[in-house]
Amino acid sequence: MALDDAPVLALTCGEPAGIGPELAVMLVADGTPPARIVAVGDPALLAERAASLGCRVEIRRLASGESPPAPCRGVLPVWSVALRAPSYPGVLDTANADHVLETLDVAIDACRSGRAAGMVTAPLHKGVILDAGHAGFSGHTEYLRDACGVEEVVMMLATDSALHARDAGWQGEAALRVALATTHLPLREVADAITAPRLQRLLRILHADLQRWFGVTAPRIAVCGLNPHAGEGGHLGREELDVIIPALEELRAEGLALDGPLPADTLFTPRHLEGADAVLAMYHDQGLPVLKYAGFGRAANITLGLPLVRTSVDHGTALDLAGTGRADLGSLRVAVALAAEMAQRGPARVAISTQEL
Amino acid sequence: MALDDAPVLALTCGEPAGIGPELAVMLVADGTPPARIVAVGDPALLAERAASLGCRVEIRRLASGESPPAPCRGVLPVWSVALRAPSYPGVLDTANADHVLETLDVAIDACRSGRAAGMVTAPLHKGVILDAGHAGFSGHTEYLRDACGVEEVVMMLATDSALHARDAGWQGEAALRVALATTHLPLREVADAITAPRLQRLLRILHADLQRWFGVTAPRIAVCGLNPHAGEGGHLGREELDVIIPALEELRAEGLALDGPLPADTLFTPRHLEGADAVLAMYHDQGLPVLKYAGFGRAANITLGLPLVRTSVDHGTALDLAGTGRADLGSLRVAVALAAEMAQRGPARVAISTQEL
Repeated sequence: MALDDAPVLALTCGEPAGIGPELAVMLVADGTPPARIVAVGDPALLAERAASLGCRVEIRRLASGESPPAPCRGVLPVWSVALRAPSYPGVLDTANADHVLETLDVAIDACRSGRAAGMVTAPLHKGVILDAGHAGFSGHTEYLRDACGVEEVVMMLATDSALHARDAGWQGEAALRVALATTHLPLREVADAITAPRLQRLLRILHADLQRWFGVTAPRIAVCGLNPHAGEGGHLGREELDVIIPALEELRAEGLALDGPLPADTLFTPRHLEGADAVLAMYHDQGLPVLKYAGFGRAANITLGLPLVRTSVDHGTALDLAGTGRADLGSLRVAVALAAEMAQRGPARVAISTQEL
Repeated sequence: MALDDAPVLALTCGEPAGIGPELAVMLVADGTPPARIVAVGDPALLAERAASLGCRVEIRRLASGESPPAPCRGVLPVWSVALRAPSYPGVLDTANADHVLETLDVAIDACRSGRAAGMVTAPLHKGVILDAGHAGFSGHTEYLRDACGVEEVVMMLATDSALHARDAGWQGEAALRVALATTHLPLREVADAITAPRLQRLLRILHADLQRWFGVTAPRIAVCGLNPHAGEGGHLGREELDVIIPALEELRAEGLALDGPLPADTLFTPRHLEGADAVLAMYHDQGLPVLKYAGFGRAANITLGLPLVRTSVDHGTALDLAGTGRADLGSLRVAVALAAEMAQRGPARVAISTQEL
């Protein structure tokens, strides 16, 4: 890939009091990114954070429609979204909630108009946006879902080399993709949330997006059971027999290649992972501990089901670390690398989406 | 350790139609075990399996109270428990259920009388024991608990080098110990099973047994939350606030060193694991997928809270593999190594237990 052909990725800087702005600066200070990154945030804030960290980074403000130049170490192009109030590391201010949401709107518009091939999001702080009066706000993912007018999205986490798992042969522990059937639900509500229509919607999205964005021609998905030992034939819960197995059977009849439902502690072993392009876990703590363990801080979050590429870091605003320069760049690097590869694999889809919109 | 001083471990052969008998044979064919192993099973069956696998192993029948010789490759001493009916690989027969239970009784007696320093169990088949009329039977662990007259035991899984984690410095992914607050429960019953008294009983056992059997002077235990993000301050479930945090506070006042409740996907990362001698997961699929992933088939099950050492393989009878020689010895090797080390660390306790009984 020539650097001039590198895809344009809009990087929203997230909560200004958090580590997002400095991660954006650190990203280009650290090396040449594999994409034409445009930060979406306040240029003065970014310059201030660069200076306080001692990073020699040129903050280059672009006009609103202007394309960023080829990726270059030490240069951070910015589409400017002004802060509403001064921001200090670690100090939340509801006055800047609209600033944060505007950065998302700018990035979404850029993707939908084709000026960006995808977006990468630094962490925002849900509480401060709620406190500012945006009562329905429940996070990046739902905001994007609604802005794009889709009904359902799928949260998937991937470790660093997941995109290469098929090409390069199985890399052992480094390469994993785990999608979740339920996300941020209290554990006692999980069993009732696992319905056949939900599983089918999510698995169809996962199948289609593995083809579209990940270049997997014939995706194979390994599906966890809900209960320990996948219910052990009904002795440890009936959801596998009553819900999951019938749902998977119908999808197999449509041509999806699905393994399972498998006991989660059997599935996450090399023999089963080797053949799988992704895993569907039934709930958060069934899938993410092993993903995070495998990824050693080098995992990123991907939203599937959108008409655009969106990846994200897998961590929060880390208000206690903001301004210290001790934030870990690992997850943002992975999020950028994944978005760049997805954007290059999915250009046809981006073109179609642009027309659709 | 001189081989003559190696601890005596009783290895129950489990379901005769499963892979247990051949694993016992393979164990001594494979090398010199780190313990004076005595198989507890049918000598003719073991000889037959050795012959059919082409293993040159001498099956050496001991008198019932006789001590085994120093460990020796190719020699398998046996305390004989006769089959009730002929057994064929892969073919369950209720007639042999009493045989299986008798092997357990012989091993338990040997531990309690001091003739063995611990026991290692190959897999049994719960269904065939139930079908044979032992209606209350629910597995090895509960059988041992009742036979030893204790009220509560703790299931803990450990990977290969877990015993050395403290001594040798953190070995990365190889060394993990994960205990479970609930085990084989349908997921929808888990939340209600997490009570403060239960957590306190389990954590006291875990703390005491890390000292007693694992040589950890001042154990530090990392505790998972029940809900995703450990409940996120009550937004994703209240059990952390209402049950887990108060339970841990009381134990801290007693002097236990506990971290948490932590989000499971944060806990299972190097930063948190480094300082922990063990993890308490709230339920099966929160803790075991990462343990099995980390262990790559080299994990074993340990029952804590008993007055004797008991370890076990982490797999089932594998009826489809029985007789083929393709069974994986990995978990049994770990189970034997762990039991041998525990037995050597806990001799005082064994002596006390013997008096107590």
